[in-house]
Amino acid sequence: MSEINRVWRLRKRPAGDLGDDVLSLDEEPIPQPSDGEFLFRLNYLSLDPTNRVWMRDEASYLPPVELNAPMRGVVCGTILKSLHPDYTEGTVVTGLGIWADYQIGTPDSVRPMGDTGPISVVDAFSTFAVVGPTAYFGLLDIGQPKAGDTVVVSAAAGAVGSIVGQIAKLKGCKVVGLTGSDGKCDWIRNDLGFDAAINYRTADLPETLAAACPNGIDVYFDSVGGEILDVCLGLMNFKGRVPTCGLISQYNATEPVPGPTNYPKILMQRLRVEGFIVLDYAERYPEAIAALGQWMVAGKIKVRTEIVDGLEEALHALKKLFTGDNVGKLILRVKDI
Amino acid sequence: MSEINRVWRLRKRPAGDLGDDVLSLDEEPIPQPSDGEFLFRLNYLSLDPTNRVWMRDEASYLPPVELNAPMRGVVCGTILKSLHPDYTEGTVVTGLGIWADYQIGTPDSVRPMGDTGPISVVDAFSTFAVVGPTAYFGLLDIGQPKAGDTVVVSAAAGAVGSIVGQIAKLKGCKVVGLTGSDGKCDWIRNDLGFDAAINYRTADLPETLAAACPNGIDVYFDSVGGEILDVCLGLMNFKGRVPTCGLISQYNATEPVPGPTNYPKILMQRLRVEGFIVLDYAERYPEAIAALGQWMVAGKIKVRTEIVDGLEEALHALKKLFTGDNVGKLILRVKDI
Repeated sequence: MSEINRVWRLRKRPAGDLGDDVLSLDEEPIPQPSDGEFLFRLNYLSLDPTNRVWMRDEASYLPPVELNAPMRGVVCGTILKSLHPDYTEGTVVTGLGIWADYQIGTPDSVRPMGDTGPISVVDAFSTFAVVGPTAYFGLLDIGQPKAGDTVVVSAAAGAVGSIVGQIAKLKGCKVVGLTGSDGKCDWIRNDLGFDAAINYRTADLPETLAAACPNGIDVYFDSVGGEILDVCLGLMNFKGRVPTCGLISQYNATEPVPGPTNYPKILMQRLRVEGFIVLDYAERYPEAIAALGQWMVAGKIKVRTEIVDGLEEALHALKKLFTGDNVGKLILRVKDI
Repeated sequence: MSEINRVWRLRKRPAGDLGDDVLSLDEEPIPQPSDGEFLFRLNYLSLDPTNRVWMRDEASYLPPVELNAPMRGVVCGTILKSLHPDYTEGTVVTGLGIWADYQIGTPDSVRPMGDTGPISVVDAFSTFAVVGPTAYFGLLDIGQPKAGDTVVVSAAAGAVGSIVGQIAKLKGCKVVGLTGSDGKCDWIRNDLGFDAAINYRTADLPETLAAACPNGIDVYFDSVGGEILDVCLGLMNFKGRVPTCGLISQYNATEPVPGPTNYPKILMQRLRVEGFIVLDYAERYPEAIAALGQWMVAGKIKVRTEIVDGLEEALHALKKLFTGDNVGKLILRVKDI
């Protein structure tokens, strides 16, 4: 164990694209746990679009990260020293933590990872910590797909979208994925079994999507907002559902972004547009993890984890989420378990 | 019975504010019913914002009115001649018809009004045909208000909004109404029992509404869209509901109207925005009519009907809905029953 702790701290509220000056990586002493706490070292850090939301000075589903405070993240780590009777040294824990080599945990912030069976710890963390339950509850609870429905997924080669599409296929839906490169289109169509894939950067989206959805759209799983949302709203069927999981196209905006011009379709087609955050489903995680784990072990759902090594790469890696430069779930590895 | 029928026909798709040339009033022969049909004369015509939607060449919840076809409306009339065994002369019927003195009905288009008890036919038509069930199902089914919730109603002195607010009060909610004149504010606050009323034309809406809703908004009943929607979205509480009943601020627009800049609140606050049309609830009308009728007779819900006389006044009267020049339900009277 090193004597030095490296901690990413928020130094500036981002405006527009993420700059190198929004976070700094500082060397600090290793903290010591008090009674009821434990010290753990970071093994894996989940990098998610929502990290960008937490940097803003704006109420969202969690309070903003304070200026100069450590950056918040979903973490997986190993307990080194415990002053909590139920958390023993060597236990692998996961939950909300910070971007730092060493950090303090409590039962309120993290929980034991448990036995991951035939699934590796990194794949289990990658899939079960955030994106798998997000896809599972967002699609099934909010989207309520029925066999035969047409389901359109944006950011379809992303961590959430790739799982959403595969669950929708398991439920008997026709699934159309929107993504930003031909390579990603190939992956979701050929490896993941999507019925159709559209490169929204090169296609005439309104025309291509309408052609791919001759019966309209019953469920649009929205992770991006913006123009793609607008086109999808225009194709929604009567009583369609729009689970709203993210609006990544808008997170780096510096001015208020107008909403979709097709907003009146909500009225005309009697749509249900509903936002959700996976944290709201914390009590039902075991249900999602059990289902996803079975599908993964049976080969019915494939997950792809893109690993970037080194805590010092965290900010650089995070930027990839906003430029479409990653496929699947982006995980920063500090030290393998 | 006259020999001449007057029929309003759609001559032009409206662009922007309703012009005098979109409809023409023509003199035509009185139609004759075929087997299974009946002829009825128009007594009352309901004038509703949605009439404007039907004039557009755009798929909505009903097909557009064809150019040169008679204008569609919700009607109340009296059967003069019947070739249908179950519909006898003198029966008062209500349903979808046209803007004409005399017209053909079938059991698919209209149904008998039935006994209205202590409520006059015109008040029963005014309240039960469209706006009462709209308010009832939109607020209760989609809005799901709980006692103690803060409910904000736009177009609050309008036919739907004035009933929505009164039902919300009956359910134990705090009710704030938005309307366009001080006189309407007085009416909804003093006569209808709203907790607060804001003249959105003269108030600083974001500031005044925030002050009127210190605990945020749980249900925003949207009939208007536009800027008022945007301000309300910004004040919505966690898991708030936005029943979307109309978007009247946008119906006369000639360019695509941007959606609300606060659209991301749907995600951050996990809102449910859901459109509905009262026709979807046709099978449950008796439930709404029974409840509304009891509340009206008990004096718990007050309805206000603004009557304009003369079929020839229909277009002129319809325009009042878009300028805020009416209070309560606007009804055109052709001939009293």
